[in-house]
Amino acid sequence: MGAAQALSVAEDAHLLTAAEVLGYIRTGDLTVEQYVRALLDRIAERDSQVRAWAYLDRDYVLEQARALDAVPLEQRGPLHGMPIGVKDVIYTKDMPTQFNSSAYKGNFPKVDAAPITLLRAAGALLLGKTTTTEFAATGEGPATRNPHDLSRTPGGSSSGSGASVGDFQVPVALGTQTGGSVIRPASFNGTYGFKPTWGRISREGLKFFSVTYDTLGFFTRGIDDLVLLADAFGLHDDSSLPASARLSSLDSVDGLRLALFRTMMWPHAGPGTRAAVDDAVALLRARGATVEDVELPAEFDQLPAWYDVVLAVEGGTAFLPEYRANRAHLGALLVGYAETSGGYSHRAYLEAVDGIAALRPKMDAVLAGYDAVLTPSTPDEAPIGSTTGSYLFCKVWSALHVPVLNMPGFQGAHGMPIGLSLVAPRFKDAQLLAVAAPVAAIFEAEGGWTRRVHNKTVTMTNGHYNGAVDKTETNGASHNGMNHE
Amino acid sequence: MGAAQALSVAEDAHLLTAAEVLGYIRTGDLTVEQYVRALLDRIAERDSQVRAWAYLDRDYVLEQARALDAVPLEQRGPLHGMPIGVKDVIYTKDMPTQFNSSAYKGNFPKVDAAPITLLRAAGALLLGKTTTTEFAATGEGPATRNPHDLSRTPGGSSSGSGASVGDFQVPVALGTQTGGSVIRPASFNGTYGFKPTWGRISREGLKFFSVTYDTLGFFTRGIDDLVLLADAFGLHDDSSLPASARLSSLDSVDGLRLALFRTMMWPHAGPGTRAAVDDAVALLRARGATVEDVELPAEFDQLPAWYDVVLAVEGGTAFLPEYRANRAHLGALLVGYAETSGGYSHRAYLEAVDGIAALRPKMDAVLAGYDAVLTPSTPDEAPIGSTTGSYLFCKVWSALHVPVLNMPGFQGAHGMPIGLSLVAPRFKDAQLLAVAAPVAAIFEAEGGWTRRVHNKTVTMTNGHYNGAVDKTETNGASHNGMNHE
Repeated sequence: MGAAQALSVAEDAHLLTAAEVLGYIRTGDLTVEQYVRALLDRIAERDSQVRAWAYLDRDYVLEQARALDAVPLEQRGPLHGMPIGVKDVIYTKDMPTQFNSSAYKGNFPKVDAAPITLLRAAGALLLGKTTTTEFAATGEGPATRNPHDLSRTPGGSSSGSGASVGDFQVPVALGTQTGGSVIRPASFNGTYGFKPTWGRISREGLKFFSVTYDTLGFFTRGIDDLVLLADAFGLHDDSSLPASARLSSLDSVDGLRLALFRTMMWPHAGPGTRAAVDDAVALLRARGATVEDVELPAEFDQLPAWYDVVLAVEGGTAFLPEYRANRAHLGALLVGYAETSGGYSHRAYLEAVDGIAALRPKMDAVLAGYDAVLTPSTPDEAPIGSTTGSYLFCKVWSALHVPVLNMPGFQGAHGMPIGLSLVAPRFKDAQLLAVAAPVAAIFEAEGGWTRRVHNKTVTMTNGHYNGAVDKTETNGASHNGMNHE
Repeated sequence: MGAAQALSVAEDAHLLTAAEVLGYIRTGDLTVEQYVRALLDRIAERDSQVRAWAYLDRDYVLEQARALDAVPLEQRGPLHGMPIGVKDVIYTKDMPTQFNSSAYKGNFPKVDAAPITLLRAAGALLLGKTTTTEFAATGEGPATRNPHDLSRTPGGSSSGSGASVGDFQVPVALGTQTGGSVIRPASFNGTYGFKPTWGRISREGLKFFSVTYDTLGFFTRGIDDLVLLADAFGLHDDSSLPASARLSSLDSVDGLRLALFRTMMWPHAGPGTRAAVDDAVALLRARGATVEDVELPAEFDQLPAWYDVVLAVEGGTAFLPEYRANRAHLGALLVGYAETSGGYSHRAYLEAVDGIAALRPKMDAVLAGYDAVLTPSTPDEAPIGSTTGSYLFCKVWSALHVPVLNMPGFQGAHGMPIGLSLVAPRFKDAQLLAVAAPVAAIFEAEGGWTRRVHNKTVTMTNGHYNGAVDKTETNGASHNGMNHE
């Protein structure tokens, strides 16, 4: 690639996946500084509308970028120059961590969460902190808006992570999921969202809500970036298992054994998700995959109710210290957790937490019958307003600790993105990524929703954002990268 | 109490339990400043021998004490003036947190762990940071020595917490337990050690080792202080259960239904622990308790092996970020965890973690047949040297998440303390404390080990501490408090 092309890449680098740009950085066709300048320009253009950032220091970002550019090639880590947005419930030693709580305004402890320590060591560049609901634990959103329709929610609690990645402001962002806080905003913003197997990435330095459910997750605009992150965090499967080898070079869905789990939540599915499921199954079958429509065994029916009990009791434990120290700053939901733990007894908690634990190996066994299982991510496209939407379709999987991957590609009645999830047994994270790659390629190409880069000039009609006006179709974020030749 | 007595209390306050001193502070017979001066004097006298503190700022402690004394009575919390030592793997915003790791020398993030937030809000005074093994995860001790014989280990990983409380330097200290890191040092130092039900106190802001086992715990010299802490952390049992009411006013063991679980670890019990168990059972039976000698059902035999698998795999996850960022600073054991997770497969991990989870309700059911279950804490008295001793008797209970309480009272062949544990079903923390009170009173009074206050002048013979020379017998720490009248 020559100088003219390099300039073009530099200007449009924000449209690529990080994996694509990191290739240009490795070959010397782009500097980390050029890359983050493209992102900072994009953020400057869009931040007043989307409001995805709780903290971002432009000068500091550029300083970090220049420091990374000064690192000799042979000393660079596998994520050298990967810009990452960090949900503001994850500690970062060089940025404030404020939890969207008035009790923590300006809070700036000099400590990195464990995943941040690892990402820095791998060469990642932490761009800034992304917005969240209060302590990532409530359903009322921050001021962040969905980039594809500013009148709609980006979802939560990883609101800013979903919106910033969906809006091409950063290629990768960290989120956390207790109920559906990665998968839901990923679906609403048209991004990938990956919640690895529970416990596979240290949560040290992440705000606690439920010790049984809390999980770090990732937002990206391509499977390629998820693979980079999975490798960095060591999310390999047991090497002795044949599935990994077979799936590692998958380039089509032909011959894949998939299943569709509508789950007990199916009555909550709206027309957008119902159509997405129908289309997805038809697309996959047309390409040679088998897709069994499977009903969950009845013993899983108690999961949603058990989920709620565990969440309330563990939320009570998690927020008791905040309640004692900062009660006046705490929202009503969290006060309620701390005061009554949802009114559940310890006996009810133990029945629920033990019952869920007993179902985990059973679900693994069910899932092991397939290469992966397709399931809804959200009831429909992102709703209008500030509440972050329903996480009903996610809670079962959060309880069961299995890896879940949201893939974009479909759309609802208002042209908003709708994603679908693939699920695999615990510790089959690499298998899940391998299966998802050809599945997602089909969804992105033929699912009906086209990734769009919205520009600055926004038209509001009666206070309602008119998405049709500023939607510019591009191929900017395809898996194949931009064709600069 | 008049002025003369107040002076006496002030001088000897370090010999009392915190609950006793807090009573004097409430009545105005003592100030918090007078109290911590007694503790600081004791520390000054003994620190060069015992070396229990990783950080202690005398001036800052006095400043905090004066601030607490200035708080009007009606604004004081339930732990107003309780001095607490904090294991140095727990974040404190006003003191360094260094993990006994050379990578974190001088590390001073301005953040409180969740339990610290709660304790401060309740009026506790954090005295300083107590020593630990590297990241509370290895068997090689810090420089801390057992106050009852400086040639012996105080145990670990909560080495400084056990030693400082056992040596009357502080009435209460926080520890953490993953294997036996609260119960073991409590047994070795002649203190109470309480590991509440797993998950009942938020671990946010504590260094991670194993997400399945890590638990906050307490060291004290009396049940009264454990009750204060349990109340502050809201460790009540389900109120609908009759046991709590019946047990809340227990003042003798007469009629208690107890069991003795020697467990599969019994072949590891040395003569000291064997004698302690025999004496304990005889004492309890003589006072009217029934004590059944019960063998654990065979299905629990896999627990120790499963425990090890889960520890190694979760240790691998916990220390991967440190390994990537600070490998040169990391001890060989932790490098091994990060590199190989003990060589265990994910399949082995899931079998172990699911197997343990399935045994938890079964153990609860077994334990529910008794008011509490007696079991060894350690194989024998503290061994000579710097390794922290065996935690074999603790690992089963750590895996099962049940509350465990070490009570001192017995002694080994060299006059060192030996404790025994009581265990109850999960979420029966209050019941456990209620049953332990009369049991512990008998052990302390008749078990054979007498709590001693060692003075400054230490005689070393051939580099070996001669405990006989400086042991001064006192009644200073009895439950009834000192008689100043």
